[in-house]
Amino acid sequence: MRIRFAPFLIMATSPISVQAQSGPALMPVPAELNMGAGKMRLDSSFSVAIAGFADGRLHRAVSRALTRLEARIGQAVRRDSASGRPGLTLRIRGAGEPVQTPDEDESYRLTVTSAGTELEAATVVGGLRGLETLLQLVSGDASGFYLPEAVISDRPRFKWRGLLVDAGRHFMPPEMIRRTLDGMAMVKLNVLHWHLSEDQGFRVESTRYPRLHRLGSDGNYYSHTEIREIVSYARDRGIRVVPEFDMPGHSTSWFVGYPEHASAPGPYQIERKFGVFDPAFDPASEGTYAFIEGFVAEMVQLFPDPFWHIGGDEVNGRQWSRNPRIVRFRRAQGLKDNDALQAWFNRRVGRILARHGRRLVGWDEILHPNIPRNAVIQSWRGTEYLGRAASQGNAGVLSAPWYLDHQETAETHYLADPLPAGNTLTPAQAALVLGGEACMWAEHVSQETVDSRIWPRMAAVAERFWSPASVRDVDDMYRRLSLVSVSLERAGLGHEAHTFRMLRLLAGRRGVQPLHDLLAVTMPVTFGQRSQLQKTTQLTPLSGLVDAARPDPWSRSRMNQLARRIVTDPKAAETERDELTRTFTGWRPLEGQVATLGDSMPLARDGMAAATALRQLGDLGLEALSYLDGGAPADWKVRGNAALDELARPQGLLRLAGVEAVRILVNRPQ
Amino acid sequence: MRIRFAPFLIMATSPISVQAQSGPALMPVPAELNMGAGKMRLDSSFSVAIAGFADGRLHRAVSRALTRLEARIGQAVRRDSASGRPGLTLRIRGAGEPVQTPDEDESYRLTVTSAGTELEAATVVGGLRGLETLLQLVSGDASGFYLPEAVISDRPRFKWRGLLVDAGRHFMPPEMIRRTLDGMAMVKLNVLHWHLSEDQGFRVESTRYPRLHRLGSDGNYYSHTEIREIVSYARDRGIRVVPEFDMPGHSTSWFVGYPEHASAPGPYQIERKFGVFDPAFDPASEGTYAFIEGFVAEMVQLFPDPFWHIGGDEVNGRQWSRNPRIVRFRRAQGLKDNDALQAWFNRRVGRILARHGRRLVGWDEILHPNIPRNAVIQSWRGTEYLGRAASQGNAGVLSAPWYLDHQETAETHYLADPLPAGNTLTPAQAALVLGGEACMWAEHVSQETVDSRIWPRMAAVAERFWSPASVRDVDDMYRRLSLVSVSLERAGLGHEAHTFRMLRLLAGRRGVQPLHDLLAVTMPVTFGQRSQLQKTTQLTPLSGLVDAARPDPWSRSRMNQLARRIVTDPKAAETERDELTRTFTGWRPLEGQVATLGDSMPLARDGMAAATALRQLGDLGLEALSYLDGGAPADWKVRGNAALDELARPQGLLRLAGVEAVRILVNRPQ
Repeated sequence: MRIRFAPFLIMATSPISVQAQSGPALMPVPAELNMGAGKMRLDSSFSVAIAGFADGRLHRAVSRALTRLEARIGQAVRRDSASGRPGLTLRIRGAGEPVQTPDEDESYRLTVTSAGTELEAATVVGGLRGLETLLQLVSGDASGFYLPEAVISDRPRFKWRGLLVDAGRHFMPPEMIRRTLDGMAMVKLNVLHWHLSEDQGFRVESTRYPRLHRLGSDGNYYSHTEIREIVSYARDRGIRVVPEFDMPGHSTSWFVGYPEHASAPGPYQIERKFGVFDPAFDPASEGTYAFIEGFVAEMVQLFPDPFWHIGGDEVNGRQWSRNPRIVRFRRAQGLKDNDALQAWFNRRVGRILARHGRRLVGWDEILHPNIPRNAVIQSWRGTEYLGRAASQGNAGVLSAPWYLDHQETAETHYLADPLPAGNTLTPAQAALVLGGEACMWAEHVSQETVDSRIWPRMAAVAERFWSPASVRDVDDMYRRLSLVSVSLERAGLGHEAHTFRMLRLLAGRRGVQPLHDLLAVTMPVTFGQRSQLQKTTQLTPLSGLVDAARPDPWSRSRMNQLARRIVTDPKAAETERDELTRTFTGWRPLEGQVATLGDSMPLARDGMAAATALRQLGDLGLEALSYLDGGAPADWKVRGNAALDELARPQGLLRLAGVEAVRILVNRPQ
Repeated sequence: MRIRFAPFLIMATSPISVQAQSGPALMPVPAELNMGAGKMRLDSSFSVAIAGFADGRLHRAVSRALTRLEARIGQAVRRDSASGRPGLTLRIRGAGEPVQTPDEDESYRLTVTSAGTELEAATVVGGLRGLETLLQLVSGDASGFYLPEAVISDRPRFKWRGLLVDAGRHFMPPEMIRRTLDGMAMVKLNVLHWHLSEDQGFRVESTRYPRLHRLGSDGNYYSHTEIREIVSYARDRGIRVVPEFDMPGHSTSWFVGYPEHASAPGPYQIERKFGVFDPAFDPASEGTYAFIEGFVAEMVQLFPDPFWHIGGDEVNGRQWSRNPRIVRFRRAQGLKDNDALQAWFNRRVGRILARHGRRLVGWDEILHPNIPRNAVIQSWRGTEYLGRAASQGNAGVLSAPWYLDHQETAETHYLADPLPAGNTLTPAQAALVLGGEACMWAEHVSQETVDSRIWPRMAAVAERFWSPASVRDVDDMYRRLSLVSVSLERAGLGHEAHTFRMLRLLAGRRGVQPLHDLLAVTMPVTFGQRSQLQKTTQLTPLSGLVDAARPDPWSRSRMNQLARRIVTDPKAAETERDELTRTFTGWRPLEGQVATLGDSMPLARDGMAAATALRQLGDLGLEALSYLDGGAPADWKVRGNAALDELARPQGLLRLAGVEAVRILVNRPQ
């Protein structure tokens, strides 16, 4: 780590400097880190001694860690409880909670000396976190592999650090869930929020109500066996699985098999379009609650987590207002509007959950004066709902800044905070903010593209949830993110190979370098833009250029970094000027190359608008660079910014990643 | 297809020329193909009409084909039985065999006109084959996607076209089997030979003998559910699943849980080394046959295929010779040696299999005068065993030329033949040669590297098994292989992304271009060389440069092609000379670049020897090119060939892919 993290570092007398692009990349940054100059060599004599508590979960975790270590160093290590000095001694004090909760102790202490490594933790989960840090420390030099001397004392800032996977809109097979859990564990996330039902699909086998999965899923659902295996797989990695069964809205797929619980007669079909739809559970029928209770009773056998997510978002109330029986019921209960009726429904569901030992979580629409005090509010419409929840005593989890489907940059996600600086919460209220969750909504992702949307940005979000609040250096985040992104590939995640692979499939052949060059400096349009421009449905193949593009190409932060250095001191930044000049000049031939490809690859033609705009942006950037020494014409800033405003718009379904950098150059103080 | 395939083409009046790197790449080449100039446009109005027989298997196949078509053209097509003229009309005459056998009718006829497509077949399996051809026909031009006019009448040359997957030495998870089956279906293979037990692992759950999987598998085995799903997945793709449970040798893992059936007392442990080991079933004990019968009775419930592979290879007989009871038994039976004892064992097992309705298959060691006439001999030690089998009336399957672990080129595999030209078999004997199987033995592959070893070479082998014998144009094979290789990625196969991914993991970061450049022109040492040089075990991580390399890099055939054109007419081949000059010159800086990477990436240092040898080879190639016009010194050929002999040796664990090309240049007729 760099010295700029000094508040969280106790620097040793001989701190080692971590060179860019090599050496360890700890992500999330530990709470306390103290690095020395020594090295503990890693070779086939490495072994692990378990000196404290051990159980099957710990043994399996050690075995997995050793397999990863072996792959990294290219040698098998010792798997027996070795004689001689072990490379790693584990001192775990206990198993931790039988069912993991947000209060699990995840802290650990890792000490690497040239003679050996010790990992201490109160719980197995703490041990898991420490093993991940240890693997991130593995480094190489001309003599081989080693662990750098370090003393790390680490614990999470937030107790709820989650990722929502939407398997409803596009099904995500068990392999995707497993590799996602592996990636999550590598960056110390601890909650998989599994969005299991949607208008577009019901994804869980129900033996009690089999028409749910038989009629509501197109055959794409998780069997009981698969769910049990995934929950167990997650627990082995210190990750809770919180199921979400969205109700009363976002529920069309339930009613294909069970129309009698909807608020209008039906029949219903699986919804193919995306958006907010009318179907909603009938809140005025006792049958609805009996059905839900039967369903909950079955599902709690599969999902041991103490929390249960009821959804509760985006209920438009139309079916309720149009059904005289429901309107009468609402009035009879003294409920003034459909919001109050939904709150009444939520309380009923909350009582069912309480009977089955589950605490209710819901999207921020459920925040209502009558919501039970132990309900958790997940804020998606804005950070302010967490404060409101806290002020009425409800715990909260923040998601609004971390919608991965919005195609924002890692930087944007990284600088958001569940407890932003300057928030006005009292310490007691702040303690009710449990943490955050990034959301991978699946309108625009399939199992083939989803890795490229989640990772690597998710690792930056994971750092926000784990590391001290003052860890906010964006350039250093990107340096480490680049390295962690590669290590995440070992879990089988496809984000790094994604663009080339998708381009080969799109083209039907190898030799797609011009398209790759284009996507290296462009990114998908935002969720809102794509929804407007393309009108996708669940059946739209996600195999276009926009799907091959990456949400935050590495070039974006690099170009911004170069531009910032240049405007800070144009004279000193000769290398940076050269690099940007080469970059901008390199964009010129793409327009012709992409046009040529388009003659035999129809889907390549979708890149023409971006290739043309890219040439214009490059020319603008070159013009800006040409004014660095001599000064710009009088109308330059106005003209340049106007051109940039145009170039910042969607070009087809792509956006240019270099607009910010050129804007920095255009607007430099003269 | 090119005109050179004329024996199998009935050319239309306006044949279209298929340009290199674009247009359709049919692989395997159909038996009869007639292409026209028209185009049938593909867009969202495309639909499928089923005019003949249909069952669930056909409907699922059509649905999968439409999903792939949609991904290819970037548009959803119509899934309803459409009014108006359908894009494709299916006329299937019947379901085919309830359990697929080698006699299944796989023929089909595909007619594409500008107005629509018809696919006719006697069976659903024939329909599956035709759908794959149809998807390979999809082409693009400046107006969009289309199918070219064609009349294709197609049927396989051999009825047994297989791939052996060795899940014993390294476990291959169900996902790997599924994506492999998808790839197999795309190139019309029809047998998955599943090698399920080995010294190093027993991979099937047995409820009857649970210590088999519990003690023999390290926890890596297929559950009954997984096997049933895979067998059904394979049947949906027209692929038979032939299980192999190797006996009496290669059986250590059985004896970890059941030592009483071995020929020496034990105890036994899972074998970690590779090779031929002593443990073998006790052929003299009735308990052995009762055990085997119990096992077979359980397994035939999972594996419906009429064939059952007993292995039978590499029995060293040591345990038998050392056990006086077994020696006495052998003599009492009048068996002159251990080979005869093994034949006796095979007959007993064959009778068990016959009772359970299964036909015995075994490796060529089982070929013995006493083997039952309906046993199938799989020849691995040489082509001659097929002839011997046929001469005594046994059917045979050839594998000897297709050992994918030997790291041979696609070209070598392609030119081998189950019935080579000039063979001396009678027509009746030739009819006993059912076909061939490529073997992916797993000493040196893991689930992470296996795709890169199987694919794309396997597609060339598949063509050998399906297409007419005279389809042997190597350059055209490579042209089509390159395109098919990309389409295989859609099945989730990782061979194309493999090298970059493995290099990132090896380096721990992006920015591995020099290593990629090195691997683009090198290939792994052969199986024999690696076994000698590295002494791997089951526990050796397969994450080195050699594992990132590809068995037959595209550059090899390209360089050979260039060199052949140059020596044919040096004056005319200016472009080719330029390309080879650039190639050879480009190798010079790699030595220094790889050395620099080695300073922080220990595993990159394994590339040093190859980088140095590559510079030497490049210099030799440049020298050869320099003599093209003026003539070479007197000692040039001798000196050049001697240098090439050195450079052809393993360089670390890599071989140089350019040695052949330079040798062509060195040895050109003056």
